[in-house]
Amino acid sequence: MYDCIIIGKGPAGISCAIYLKRFNKNVLVIGKDYGSLGRAKVIENYYGFNSISGLDLAKKGEEQAKNLGIEVITDEVLEIMGLTVMTKNNSYEAKSIFLATGKTNKANISGIDDSLVSYCATCDGFFFRGKKIALIGYGDFMMHEYDVLKNFTKDITIFSNSEENIKDLINGKIKKVFSKDEKKCILVNDTEYLFDGIFVASSNDSMAIAKHLGLITDSNNKFEVDNFKTNIDGIFAGGDAIDGLDQVSTSVSDGAKAAIEINKYLKEE
Amino acid sequence: MYDCIIIGKGPAGISCAIYLKRFNKNVLVIGKDYGSLGRAKVIENYYGFNSISGLDLAKKGEEQAKNLGIEVITDEVLEIMGLTVMTKNNSYEAKSIFLATGKTNKANISGIDDSLVSYCATCDGFFFRGKKIALIGYGDFMMHEYDVLKNFTKDITIFSNSEENIKDLINGKIKKVFSKDEKKCILVNDTEYLFDGIFVASSNDSMAIAKHLGLITDSNNKFEVDNFKTNIDGIFAGGDAIDGLDQVSTSVSDGAKAAIEINKYLKEE
Repeated sequence: MYDCIIIGKGPAGISCAIYLKRFNKNVLVIGKDYGSLGRAKVIENYYGFNSISGLDLAKKGEEQAKNLGIEVITDEVLEIMGLTVMTKNNSYEAKSIFLATGKTNKANISGIDDSLVSYCATCDGFFFRGKKIALIGYGDFMMHEYDVLKNFTKDITIFSNSEENIKDLINGKIKKVFSKDEKKCILVNDTEYLFDGIFVASSNDSMAIAKHLGLITDSNNKFEVDNFKTNIDGIFAGGDAIDGLDQVSTSVSDGAKAAIEINKYLKEE
Repeated sequence: MYDCIIIGKGPAGISCAIYLKRFNKNVLVIGKDYGSLGRAKVIENYYGFNSISGLDLAKKGEEQAKNLGIEVITDEVLEIMGLTVMTKNNSYEAKSIFLATGKTNKANISGIDDSLVSYCATCDGFFFRGKKIALIGYGDFMMHEYDVLKNFTKDITIFSNSEENIKDLINGKIKKVFSKDEKKCILVNDTEYLFDGIFVASSNDSMAIAKHLGLITDSNNKFEVDNFKTNIDGIFAGGDAIDGLDQVSTSVSDGAKAAIEINKYLKEE
């Protein structure tokens, strides 16, 4: 049982871990990758570094945490149930969770919006019992959603760059998603595929985790928080996953401030 | 005429300068020293640095700003009048000011509190016309306050470690300040010195600047701000000078966020 599981090993997650460790708390950091920081070519506006690549800064941060004795695991979170965090091979329990999941990586597909697609098989699969559905995504989280959807229907077509061994896999760039004749249409090359429902499985996606958990998000898919507290007791969020400037500096600060709140919460428990 | 003069070259000041420079703003940073960061032996909780001395981090920050073409001056601010910032030898005008003056270095003397001493010769000197007063302080700011006080009375005793050539200078550790028989008493060694009024001149002291400007401070001598805006139009504050965690991480974030607000303010002007 951890005092806190931190999801995301970018600046907000690592900074929170460092502060909680200082408070002598038992923390676990789980991150799939370094998110948007890892993709930033050059950072010149973070105090203390003339010029550094996002990847180098992110690695330094992870190393710093490990040097302080913090457990950092590179893994993909597939589901959070209550205060239990599940990856492909493990599940971890905690007294609190800090979501430092970064910006929502919305599938960059023309036409995709919340009215057209669902981000949560567990939540919405039931509404498509026996129907023809599409699943867009890749990796373990897509497979996890696929397994859930199979409980509701056998007619599932997967759109993915994945190399997974799945039947009914369509591999190819999706040009557009749109409504057509009360159906939902996915356009790949010049072929239109029609479905009753479309699911998008994009892991490390704040939106997916939010929908699964029942967390409230704003119109930009950021978690709504009050002083880093989400609407669910024991679950906190910060960094690019909440409304703000999406800067390293503000994420690092969020991590520190959230740690103070989480520490208070743990004391009250 | 600068777009913004930033007072303080610690994390909040430099971070703000970096962001304003990004917005193509013409900024000047004036700082006497690195404040509390410069005195921190080891910092291990600032994201990106395993372990670094406060002085080294502060130097890196200043260097970073200079590399981006930001003017950083090491000098002591003696007075701010409106949006004009005065040092010993110069005065600078700006459209806005960011106070990143750090924690209040309250004179660490037993018994000193606001009811017993004044921090502003310009504000309170008038009430001690022709009276016997003491001035506690050192350096250029003390001399500045001395010059102001001389307009009101000739009976001024200075308590200082200063080597300045002043008559009536008492050099020695002040043990205590207290009220006695409707007078105010300063105890040095075993001698009690009685005065009608005591002035404290401690520069780079948020309190001094605040009193001079008419800025509102809270009970901890932090500037009261609303989203980094003080009660005076065009004057902003952040970092350890406002209520918060007094951490490098939060100061750096404050600098970035304040820059956004200052940039908005400059646009509206």
